[in-house]
Amino acid sequence: MMAGMGRVTERRRVVRIRDGAVTERADTLVGEEPLEIRVGGRPLAVTMRTPGDDFALATGFLVSEGVVARADEVARVMYCAGATADGSNTYNVVDVRLADGVAPPDASLQRNVYTTSSCGLCGKASLDAVRTTARWPLPLTGGPALTPRLLAALPERLRAHQRVFARTGGLHAAALFDGGGELLDVREDVGRHNAVDKVVGRALGAGLLPLADTVLLVSGRASFELVQKAVMAGIPALAAVSAPSSLAVELAAEAGLTLVGFLRGTSMNVYAGAERLELPPEASGPPGPS
Amino acid sequence: MMAGMGRVTERRRVVRIRDGAVTERADTLVGEEPLEIRVGGRPLAVTMRTPGDDFALATGFLVSEGVVARADEVARVMYCAGATADGSNTYNVVDVRLADGVAPPDASLQRNVYTTSSCGLCGKASLDAVRTTARWPLPLTGGPALTPRLLAALPERLRAHQRVFARTGGLHAAALFDGGGELLDVREDVGRHNAVDKVVGRALGAGLLPLADTVLLVSGRASFELVQKAVMAGIPALAAVSAPSSLAVELAAEAGLTLVGFLRGTSMNVYAGAERLELPPEASGPPGPS
Repeated sequence: MMAGMGRVTERRRVVRIRDGAVTERADTLVGEEPLEIRVGGRPLAVTMRTPGDDFALATGFLVSEGVVARADEVARVMYCAGATADGSNTYNVVDVRLADGVAPPDASLQRNVYTTSSCGLCGKASLDAVRTTARWPLPLTGGPALTPRLLAALPERLRAHQRVFARTGGLHAAALFDGGGELLDVREDVGRHNAVDKVVGRALGAGLLPLADTVLLVSGRASFELVQKAVMAGIPALAAVSAPSSLAVELAAEAGLTLVGFLRGTSMNVYAGAERLELPPEASGPPGPS
Repeated sequence: MMAGMGRVTERRRVVRIRDGAVTERADTLVGEEPLEIRVGGRPLAVTMRTPGDDFALATGFLVSEGVVARADEVARVMYCAGATADGSNTYNVVDVRLADGVAPPDASLQRNVYTTSSCGLCGKASLDAVRTTARWPLPLTGGPALTPRLLAALPERLRAHQRVFARTGGLHAAALFDGGGELLDVREDVGRHNAVDKVVGRALGAGLLPLADTVLLVSGRASFELVQKAVMAGIPALAAVSAPSSLAVELAAEAGLTLVGFLRGTSMNVYAGAERLELPPEASGPPGPS
């Protein structure tokens, strides 16, 4: 069977086993295809993604990597017009032409290497790379306050909009909410980083960057990469249903991002930027038992 | 706070909110640090990983990419001896020296591009790339049979060995079992692909490749990339707790890999290679309702 051309889901025969009973039926699978992102014709990165919103994925990726930050820095996005060996067209290569005067990504980005000087690769270097390329500061004070109550309501609002996930169980989701908790956008993808890139790319196209006064919710864990993407888009708060990593917390703390993890029911952990949360006056009690 | 140097977990202060009650306490986070993999001194890839088993991660990655397949094809693995800007050593750059006569990876691997000819990038090309580089066939018949009962017992055996996960909730796990269901190895990592590379790299070092008569269990979803890694290591069966993607199923079907998804309790779906399973004679019933 040929790989699906840009299909979000695909039907396949599957053998189901339930308590020893065996049946065969059709099942819906989430689509996964490679996407090559080019800038000015030069290949930059390949990601395995769920087809759909490919232009937004490409431009959102470029926001994350510090190449563009405003819609007018992108001159044009198009599918590469070439054909596969069998003559059919693919929709798996996107070329982004930058506006005049916008510097193309440098070669080191091709390998996602934040520093190549001698062997100085470390978490610190990764943090520094984000700090030096981020265009918008995230002031911890002065902005609108988030409440635990508002945050607690977000996962259910995301689930109500996760359509493909319900059918395939195979997708990560990223949802953007405004400061009042209203859903602005939601994207799903086999890769959690792609889902975030798609949300950011769509916001870029709508002229909404920096995404001040928003909260980004992701369905799984919070990695360094996801915190990086939030910071680069000017998003002041990232909430995850599951755990963050050490480097994700370090970057959030350094960049002034409010990072919430284990957001489940009315419970959550705030790993950085708690200043942005409106907490009861008796907020910071003594350290509890570990 | 400096990024942790090679720490599997890290302690951080966290604000806990439970039904409106706010406390502060120390929390354990899973470590995440970049690792640059070099071959013969040339940078090849960077992955965000949980420190530990770095040499196995590097060699397992090279197995996945078709660069090596036997322990004697690796001459030496070492941490790069350079220092960071502040003079401290890092353990985030690993250099693999290949044995004489082993061809180094070609440049296209640097971008994970399976084909760069014109715009012919598609799922099919990704499948072809694995087929042309895989060293071991996975014969669907003649080998030992797997039973649903044996598969159903694996997730609990994995959970019993997931130590860091229990503390941080932030890790993916990959576990290798023999044909009798005995646990051979388990690794955890912030990246599911890293966990698999570590298992494969350790098996490579122990002279166990191809991993015929084994089952690989992963804690999350089954992506194209994970199926690729199983195929390249000669593993005939991959089981996942969650859903596979379309391209993962296509590659498994083409390579002869048994791919099991939604392995929960005594339930599971078999997406490819059901021939390898010992099912009741009344196995394939009529298609059930969808």
